[in-house]
Amino acid sequence: MTQRTDQLHLGAFIYYAGHHHAGWRHPDSGVEGMYDFDLYRSIAETAERGKFDMIFFADLLYVQNVDMAASGMLDPITLLSALSAVTTRIGLTATVSTTYNHPYNVARKFASLDYISKGRAGWNIVTSQLDIEAHNYGLPKHPDHALRYEMAEEFVEAVTKLWDSWDDDALVLDRKTGIYADPGKVKAIDYKGKWFSSKGPLNLPRPPQGNPVLIQAGSSPQGQQFASKYGEVIFTAQQSLEAAKAFYESVNSKLIEAGRKPGSLKIMPGISPILAATVEEARRKEQELMELIPAELAVAALSGMLSYDLSAYPADGPLPEIPDPVEKSNGMKSRIQLIMDTARSQNLSILELGRRILGARGHLQFVGTPEQLADLMEQWFHERACDGFNVMGPVLPGDLEIFTDEVIPILQRRGLFRKEYTGTTLREHLGLDRPESGHFSRGRAEKSAIS
Amino acid sequence: MTQRTDQLHLGAFIYYAGHHHAGWRHPDSGVEGMYDFDLYRSIAETAERGKFDMIFFADLLYVQNVDMAASGMLDPITLLSALSAVTTRIGLTATVSTTYNHPYNVARKFASLDYISKGRAGWNIVTSQLDIEAHNYGLPKHPDHALRYEMAEEFVEAVTKLWDSWDDDALVLDRKTGIYADPGKVKAIDYKGKWFSSKGPLNLPRPPQGNPVLIQAGSSPQGQQFASKYGEVIFTAQQSLEAAKAFYESVNSKLIEAGRKPGSLKIMPGISPILAATVEEARRKEQELMELIPAELAVAALSGMLSYDLSAYPADGPLPEIPDPVEKSNGMKSRIQLIMDTARSQNLSILELGRRILGARGHLQFVGTPEQLADLMEQWFHERACDGFNVMGPVLPGDLEIFTDEVIPILQRRGLFRKEYTGTTLREHLGLDRPESGHFSRGRAEKSAIS
Repeated sequence: MTQRTDQLHLGAFIYYAGHHHAGWRHPDSGVEGMYDFDLYRSIAETAERGKFDMIFFADLLYVQNVDMAASGMLDPITLLSALSAVTTRIGLTATVSTTYNHPYNVARKFASLDYISKGRAGWNIVTSQLDIEAHNYGLPKHPDHALRYEMAEEFVEAVTKLWDSWDDDALVLDRKTGIYADPGKVKAIDYKGKWFSSKGPLNLPRPPQGNPVLIQAGSSPQGQQFASKYGEVIFTAQQSLEAAKAFYESVNSKLIEAGRKPGSLKIMPGISPILAATVEEARRKEQELMELIPAELAVAALSGMLSYDLSAYPADGPLPEIPDPVEKSNGMKSRIQLIMDTARSQNLSILELGRRILGARGHLQFVGTPEQLADLMEQWFHERACDGFNVMGPVLPGDLEIFTDEVIPILQRRGLFRKEYTGTTLREHLGLDRPESGHFSRGRAEKSAIS
Repeated sequence: MTQRTDQLHLGAFIYYAGHHHAGWRHPDSGVEGMYDFDLYRSIAETAERGKFDMIFFADLLYVQNVDMAASGMLDPITLLSALSAVTTRIGLTATVSTTYNHPYNVARKFASLDYISKGRAGWNIVTSQLDIEAHNYGLPKHPDHALRYEMAEEFVEAVTKLWDSWDDDALVLDRKTGIYADPGKVKAIDYKGKWFSSKGPLNLPRPPQGNPVLIQAGSSPQGQQFASKYGEVIFTAQQSLEAAKAFYESVNSKLIEAGRKPGSLKIMPGISPILAATVEEARRKEQELMELIPAELAVAALSGMLSYDLSAYPADGPLPEIPDPVEKSNGMKSRIQLIMDTARSQNLSILELGRRILGARGHLQFVGTPEQLADLMEQWFHERACDGFNVMGPVLPGDLEIFTDEVIPILQRRGLFRKEYTGTTLREHLGLDRPESGHFSRGRAEKSAIS
């Protein structure tokens, strides 16, 4: 295997006041500022100081267990737009659902964010997860997994066509002749899908990045298929080097099959690092955080995820046999398989497993020193298990500051990460080409045959 | 009539690079920056320097005649959120349609803007106008006027209930006990309408202003009815002092009938000022702008507005008899009546009328000196024709700068306008109370009976 000549890509993933379920209770969390711009401003400034490729906001279209769990977050696009005014380089990625929006609105909002930030917008495409989200939108139940992907594919097709509905050189702005735009370069898309339709053109010219960067978070076979067609970044949960390498190879071979250029899809697993000067100290912090998760909630979360009521089983006992949890679930299929495998291989009790799920929420939990984390990241990168990581600070902003101050300098010294931004757009940070108009809509294979 | 002791309220209305149809072609327009944050930043800074109550963004969900007309604008909420980060006091009002969104998304976005700006958000509630907007959302035609108001009423009811779904003191954020929020103070709304439903609660606590300020732009009888129930600001088109006084009285009597407090609904007509040191110079600027509007477009605009093809009639001839234009139209009913009346009373040709429509778009066009404009504003205010104005710069940012530098100091000297902001929220600028939770949902009359 040849040595890689590229560098790591890093996202600063923001989920409430910390990715860990009990993160908000930790003294280093900024929970009092959850709805205050100043907290996010300081988070974005830290991430930009660290030269992260992007700051990456999660999103949930519901609240649940508001008594025990952090609940309710600012709308990501709205928040990122404000952050664009107080930063200059860092990419700005928002999670937006394809199930509870219309493509015309989403195309317009991301195009606007891309303009306002001068080319720093990214869209984390999700299909949402739960019936209680459907209820907030007046629907009786959340569409099932297969149907959601069918809808998502239409949605993204419509959005990319809308972004391309103005040619790059459509604007004329000639005061003298009074020609605002060249009408031959602004076209209806006449998109008619089963779920979404839009005539177009969009009410904005083509965005600075051509298309804001498309990020995709599902790792199920359908998710991978979708990513190989549209994804430019894939945000995945991987628990081991071996599994991550297999995933990396699988996704990249699908990419080539789809006629896309190698390197045009960056694979960035989540990693939730609990860091301290010694392993023992880091373990203590992990234990402390775990114990802050109410037992009742841990069992309920595991029950919910497996669609199986575990409350009657002893919490310190093992997971009982559960018939087909992956089949039954409607969302995060790949995540559930991972959980079942981990429970078996590590002999965890129901409570431990429940807490672990709420802890790193299915993503890799790292516990150790900054040097050890840098070693792991280097190994995963060099052995082609990933192209970078989404760093999920378990406590925010505290753990993002620690990562920025303690881990990034090590990665920089090893030549694994940039010391300065070399570009100004998110595409440039990620090493992704600016797509020509029609790039997505013509289909990748066809495009490859043409060029 | 007793002398007023309050002061004028002023909005800086932003529509493309100027409210006048040909405004973008004028040398003082910033049209090259139409999609560049820096233009809007400078506009917002000017308006804040002028101590305007708010900056107020129009919105259109389509483009049309892109060859001859300014087309495509940044999404207002996204843009205002970025502007909130570079301003500290000015109110931030966005136009958002109740026809092509879902209440859960809109409630969340305005709540987010209200948090991010620390209480400066306002929502200009519109129902949109044209079939080509419907087509962008996959619908065959735009719902008719009566139906749109029925939908809008449900929409706003759902949104206000969602804003109130968390009590003001619901957040606990107790790290020690692990209680995030008081579950008895976060409630489902179980809203079931004919057009929109939402279970709730919203995924955000109650906004800083309780509810972002509700602004309503329709002046038809249905629009007035709607405003008397929900509106806190009414944005209206009035061509004469007498008509404005009658409108002011009518709206205020409906307000009292609805059991609301006098002064709880501010009436702010649009005014589009063409200013110069002398009347002659201002007239020349008006003429210059008018002649920049292509004749073809002026006739087409008038035809479209009246639902009657005028292209076969001589453009310099009078308007022919048109059967029932107000009845036939689906949108801006009150505006059309105004146009017909103006054409008759001022003996305008088809071309003049078409250009005038595209010029001030149905709003009052003022042409004269800053001193004369201040006189007009003072008279309208003191004779109770309005509570303030939405200032629609025909050329932006040029005319906003002229108004700020030349007219506002006169208004300040006369004691008609603030010299400094005294509050920090849009409600405080407008002199509107912060509504208690349930204020809108309980119904005004009922509330009035209780208190």
